[in-house]
Amino acid sequence: MISVKSEQRCFGGLQGFYEHESESCAGPMRFAVYLPPNASADHKVPAVYFLAGLTCTEETFVIKAGAQRVASELGLAIVTCDTSPRSKRYPGDDASWDFGQGAGFYLDATRAPWNESYRMERYVTRELRELVEAHFPLQNERRAIMGHSMGGHGALVLALRHRDLYQSVSALAPIVAPSEVPWGQKAFAGYLGDDRAAWLEHDACALVAKRAIASKILVDVGTADKFLARELQPERFVSACKSAGQSLELTMRDGYDHSYYFVQTFAEAHLRHHASQLAAR
Amino acid sequence: MISVKSEQRCFGGLQGFYEHESESCAGPMRFAVYLPPNASADHKVPAVYFLAGLTCTEETFVIKAGAQRVASELGLAIVTCDTSPRSKRYPGDDASWDFGQGAGFYLDATRAPWNESYRMERYVTRELRELVEAHFPLQNERRAIMGHSMGGHGALVLALRHRDLYQSVSALAPIVAPSEVPWGQKAFAGYLGDDRAAWLEHDACALVAKRAIASKILVDVGTADKFLARELQPERFVSACKSAGQSLELTMRDGYDHSYYFVQTFAEAHLRHHASQLAAR
Repeated sequence: MISVKSEQRCFGGLQGFYEHESESCAGPMRFAVYLPPNASADHKVPAVYFLAGLTCTEETFVIKAGAQRVASELGLAIVTCDTSPRSKRYPGDDASWDFGQGAGFYLDATRAPWNESYRMERYVTRELRELVEAHFPLQNERRAIMGHSMGGHGALVLALRHRDLYQSVSALAPIVAPSEVPWGQKAFAGYLGDDRAAWLEHDACALVAKRAIASKILVDVGTADKFLARELQPERFVSACKSAGQSLELTMRDGYDHSYYFVQTFAEAHLRHHASQLAAR
Repeated sequence: MISVKSEQRCFGGLQGFYEHESESCAGPMRFAVYLPPNASADHKVPAVYFLAGLTCTEETFVIKAGAQRVASELGLAIVTCDTSPRSKRYPGDDASWDFGQGAGFYLDATRAPWNESYRMERYVTRELRELVEAHFPLQNERRAIMGHSMGGHGALVLALRHRDLYQSVSALAPIVAPSEVPWGQKAFAGYLGDDRAAWLEHDACALVAKRAIASKILVDVGTADKFLARELQPERFVSACKSAGQSLELTMRDGYDHSYYFVQTFAEAHLRHHASQLAAR
């Protein structure tokens, strides 16, 4: 059961916001789908999943990135979701902006109480995917995934852990080595506990080092990003990809910061990358 | 004295947010300027002033419309401001979303207490214009003005009242006959009092009927706009332009509503319209 929150025409297609009762997240969850003008029951289109960063929601990318123009032209759907469950509440879940509400890190928590509803990996890769593919004219054989910051972490990790699901992946200013940086360490300790082996299963650098994926990974990071040195450390990903033989195009963008002014500048190139990689499949 | 709130690289140019002490508005006001990559002390660029609608701020168009991409390509600056003064407070100024805070209607109030600081016409056409032309590499001989909803009203009225200042004007879902519709009547009664002759000096239909301007006016309105029949009534403007011999290109956009999904879809065409009209001067 999907309830429609709003649907708006945008670049000839339809930008919709929806809510449904999620089993993975133990309560209602919101998501958004952009359908390009050429999508119809007779013409299913590939979807690009966009995962947002800390404090964001299903609306952030949709309203701030200007991506529908390009998706309309390329015939791509865009699927976005919230950054954490919101309905079950736990002590401390709003004490900080980098843990709990708005900071689900796209993993299934194993520690109580978080493991009751903080199951964003299962949500994105299974529940939401099956839901949108059943209710919207989306292909179920070709998908891309991308994200920003914490969502860049999510995109890289989910693509590396679910190789059959996503044929193209990219990230804007991603957290690539969460086990090694403060944001990731705080989240992993809270959601997964102290077992560092479990952390590495959700760490893009550790995952890619074990085995490369077939498609080229596209990453952009701004040189004026205030989180660059402390949280992002893209050189770790360059190094891990190199050692694994992973094809990677990582560009440092001169003077750009962490904001959606950076995201809106480079979102088009990422969508074109996905269209091109999906077309080759 | 301009204080920098933030500056971010965007599409090769610079998106800045600023604050200054405004004489017209009797207190601090925020505004934003996007400079395209080709703007420099040696190469001044024309500015497009964008006026936002009810409840919006200087940030709304800047973060939601994806306009910097086009402005970057066309070599246009974008200047935005807040939709009302915010620092002087008056009883009832936040009682409703269509009067007072966030609803300045781009006029100089003549009724107390509003006339102390609600002087948005003077602010936009004189104070802000002189400020940004003195501090940024903006041409002082060519300007365009556009807006959305209440800001569409503002753009049309300011272009019609200050014919020497703006060489190109356009509007998205504008209020064109404020004297005849509830939003405008409430605002005009509050800011200007009961004298309907004074209202007509801020009514685009009444102004254009008196005398056409030289440039073609571009207007887009969505057919699914929920304010269409009650507040917008674009047919009044078609009629007024026709009777005055005013060149007008007004298009009803099938299925589009009043939101920024509509604005982001058609902002590009408006910027291209302004670039083309300004280039012809």
